[in-house]
Amino acid sequence: MIRKQLQFKQATSLLIICVFCFSLLTLNSYAQFSKKQEVTFKIGMAGYTFKDISIDKTIEMMKRINVKYLSIKDIQLPLTSTQEEITAVKKKFADAGITIYTGGVIYMKTKEAVDQAFDYGKKLGIDMLVCAPNYELLPYVEQKVKETNIRVALHNHGPDNPLYPNATDIMKHIGNMDTRMGICIDIGHTTRDGQDPCVDMKRYFKRIFDIHIKDETAAAKEGKTCEMGRGVIDLPKFVETLKALKYTGVCSLEFEKDSKDPLPGVAESIGYFNACIQCTK
Amino acid sequence: MIRKQLQFKQATSLLIICVFCFSLLTLNSYAQFSKKQEVTFKIGMAGYTFKDISIDKTIEMMKRINVKYLSIKDIQLPLTSTQEEITAVKKKFADAGITIYTGGVIYMKTKEAVDQAFDYGKKLGIDMLVCAPNYELLPYVEQKVKETNIRVALHNHGPDNPLYPNATDIMKHIGNMDTRMGICIDIGHTTRDGQDPCVDMKRYFKRIFDIHIKDETAAAKEGKTCEMGRGVIDLPKFVETLKALKYTGVCSLEFEKDSKDPLPGVAESIGYFNACIQCTK
Repeated sequence: MIRKQLQFKQATSLLIICVFCFSLLTLNSYAQFSKKQEVTFKIGMAGYTFKDISIDKTIEMMKRINVKYLSIKDIQLPLTSTQEEITAVKKKFADAGITIYTGGVIYMKTKEAVDQAFDYGKKLGIDMLVCAPNYELLPYVEQKVKETNIRVALHNHGPDNPLYPNATDIMKHIGNMDTRMGICIDIGHTTRDGQDPCVDMKRYFKRIFDIHIKDETAAAKEGKTCEMGRGVIDLPKFVETLKALKYTGVCSLEFEKDSKDPLPGVAESIGYFNACIQCTK
Repeated sequence: MIRKQLQFKQATSLLIICVFCFSLLTLNSYAQFSKKQEVTFKIGMAGYTFKDISIDKTIEMMKRINVKYLSIKDIQLPLTSTQEEITAVKKKFADAGITIYTGGVIYMKTKEAVDQAFDYGKKLGIDMLVCAPNYELLPYVEQKVKETNIRVALHNHGPDNPLYPNATDIMKHIGNMDTRMGICIDIGHTTRDGQDPCVDMKRYFKRIFDIHIKDETAAAKEGKTCEMGRGVIDLPKFVETLKALKYTGVCSLEFEKDSKDPLPGVAESIGYFNACIQCTK
C-alpha cells in the first residue's frame, strides 16, 4: 500500500516537473519571436562613418535608415567651431529629429587639447565626450570631469594603436579615478585585439558609457570593418548580453568601409542589428 | 527500508529529469546564436524591385548586397527578346556571379501570351515561370507544363486584384491539376489579404515553388511595402517556419518602394533577413 502511494506520488512529481520544463521551453522559443519587445538601449551612428559626407547628406542618410542618435565627429564639426556654428549644426540635426548625444572620438595630446575638447562639449550641450587622451593627461582629464560634470568615455583602438588597445587597458588606467570616467567600447577593435566583446561588456559594465558597434572580417589585426552579419562577431550574442545587462546607452554603428558611399553597408548593418534585437531573448 | 529505497529512486529520477530539461534549455538558447548554421534555402531578388533601374546598375546593386539569385522581370528583359538578347543578358548576370533562376511575374491574358511566356522560359533556360494567367487559361497552361516540363508558380496579389488574391484561391484552381503547377507565395500580399504567411506556407508547402519576401506597413489593403523589420510581418517566425519545413527554394525580396533608388531599403531588408536566418532556430 505504502509502495503504491509512493509510486503514485513519484509519477505525479515527474509529470509536474515535465510539464513545468516544457512550459519553460515553449516560453523560451516564444520569447525570441516577440517583435515589439521593450529594449532599454538605442541605436545611433558614430560620426566617423560620415567622414567623407556633408552634413546635409548625413542627415538625409540617417533619415533614410531611421536612426535618431549621432556621436558627431570633429571632421564634420571641427573642435575649433564657434558657439554659433555649433548651435547651427545642432539645430540642423534637431530639425530632422536627430539628437547629437556625444562627440568623438576626440584625441588629446596636450592640456590645451583637453581644454578645447571640454569647451566643445559645453558648447554642444552634451554630458559625455568619447575620447582618447594620452595616458599622462588622464589626471588632468579627471580634473576637468570634476569641474564640468561632463563624463568621458575612453575609446579602445585595438592592436594597431598603443593607446588603449582594449577595455582592460582602459580600466587599468582609470579604474581608481572618478567614476564619471569610463569606456566607449568598440566591439570591432575589441575583437581585432583577440578579446570577447561579451566578456568585456559584462566585466566592465558599470563603467561602459557608450558602444561602437560593427562587424569585422577577422578577429585579428588585419580585420577590416564589414557589413554586419558578414563578419566574425557574434552580434546576436552581443545583443543578448546588452539585454541581460539592461544597458541603457546608445549602440552607435561605426561603419569604416565605403566612406564615399556608406549608405548601402550602413543600411544592411542597421537592418541586421534591428533583427538581432527583435529575434533574441 | 523499501520506503527509503523508493525515496532515493524518486530523488534520483527527479534529478535526472531536471538535468535533462535544463540541458535542453541551454541547447535551445545556444542554437539561436550559432551563426554559421546550414540553411536549405537561398536569398534572391524579385526583378520588379529594379523596374526603374538599368541592368548594369541592378548587377552593381546585387553585388553590393551579396545576393546571387534573380527572378528577372519582363520590364528589364522583355518577353519579345530574341535568343541572342536573352543569352547576352544572362551572360552579364552570370559574369557577376548571379543566376537568373526564374522570370516573372508574367501576366497571361491570351493563349498567345501563354505561348510567349513558355517560349521565353525556354530561351532563358529556366525550369520555372512565376506567373498569373487568367483563370480560364489554366487548362492551356497545364498543357504547356506537360509539353515543356517547365513548372509554373502562380503569384498571389492580395485584396486589390481579383486574380489570385491568396494562396488558397490559387490552390482552389490548380489543386487537381499537374503537380508541376504551384505557388509563388507573396508574403506581403498574403498579409494584406488578412492571411497568415506561416499558416499558408505550412498548408500548401508541397506546392510552393517560390517566395516573394517583403514587409508591409499594415495587414490590410492599404498596406505598403516597407523595409523589413519596420512593418507588421513576423519575419523571424516566417524564417523559422521555412527552416522547420526545410524549404529548398529561393526567398526573393520584392521591394516595392523607392523604385528610383531602391538600394538602401533593399540593403536594410537583406541585412534584416540575414539576421533572422542567423538568430532563429
